[in-house]
Amino acid sequence: MKLKLALAILLSTTTLVASAGPIEDQIKTRQSAYSFMGWNSAKIKAQVADKPETYNKEQVITAANVIAAIANSGLGSLYGPGTDQGIGWKKTALKPEFFEKQDEAKKLATDFNREANEFAKVAATGSVTEIKDKFGKLSESCKSCHQSFRIREQH
Amino acid sequence: MKLKLALAILLSTTTLVASAGPIEDQIKTRQSAYSFMGWNSAKIKAQVADKPETYNKEQVITAANVIAAIANSGLGSLYGPGTDQGIGWKKTALKPEFFEKQDEAKKLATDFNREANEFAKVAATGSVTEIKDKFGKLSESCKSCHQSFRIREQH
Repeated sequence: MKLKLALAILLSTTTLVASAGPIEDQIKTRQSAYSFMGWNSAKIKAQVADKPETYNKEQVITAANVIAAIANSGLGSLYGPGTDQGIGWKKTALKPEFFEKQDEAKKLATDFNREANEFAKVAATGSVTEIKDKFGKLSESCKSCHQSFRIREQH
Repeated sequence: MKLKLALAILLSTTTLVASAGPIEDQIKTRQSAYSFMGWNSAKIKAQVADKPETYNKEQVITAANVIAAIANSGLGSLYGPGTDQGIGWKKTALKPEFFEKQDEAKKLATDFNREANEFAKVAATGSVTEIKDKFGKLSESCKSCHQSFRIREQH
């Protein structure tokens, strides 16, 4: 398991500089990934934080597995050069700083990857309190990256 | 594992009639799911069928795990009443027949779910030939549903 985790992190970080397909496709694919993780994350948040009476262990495990699987899938390859400009499903919110601060980006990606995998483990084996705490850690890893590299959307 | 698989299938099929959020959100979320599965599926196809010299076991496992995790995540809840009309990231391609043929929809969803989970297992343990064969079966389960319930896109 530790080897698998290490491999997953390696895969996700070493692909940060590679790219996958035209700019618009990369943006569209990563927007799809984050949207779908968002749906799963919202389900977890509802069940472990906002409405604990709705907690369903199987559903939280399933949602945690989605987030871990997507985190492990080499998202870095969807951040090729030029993808701070362009339209996928919508205009990208990636800040140009992302390309100037690759060390920070790599660190944040590694943190997110680790938290996503650890959360999936805790979702399967931990108590609700442990799951809630670990979900907080995972959410922080999301927010850290948003703060550094995502343009705040206008609502 | 068998119990987990059975549970996953149960979750994905019993949620066919439930719904998750406003129509546009359901459509957007399922479009995200299929787009992201498409990216992973394209990676597998390239590595096991089109360019077998690029086969990378870890990457195929990772991509297979994404597809299985998403298939297990209760996509059925994103097909609530009225979601054959509406715009997510783009206009939905769901045919209205989906709601008239719920038995067929349920069967196709169950088939897809089973194939996605079995494929993830074969990706981790099978030979390249077995992986390729099983990927063919998974692809067929996608196509069956597209044929019955997806409006052909104009290119």
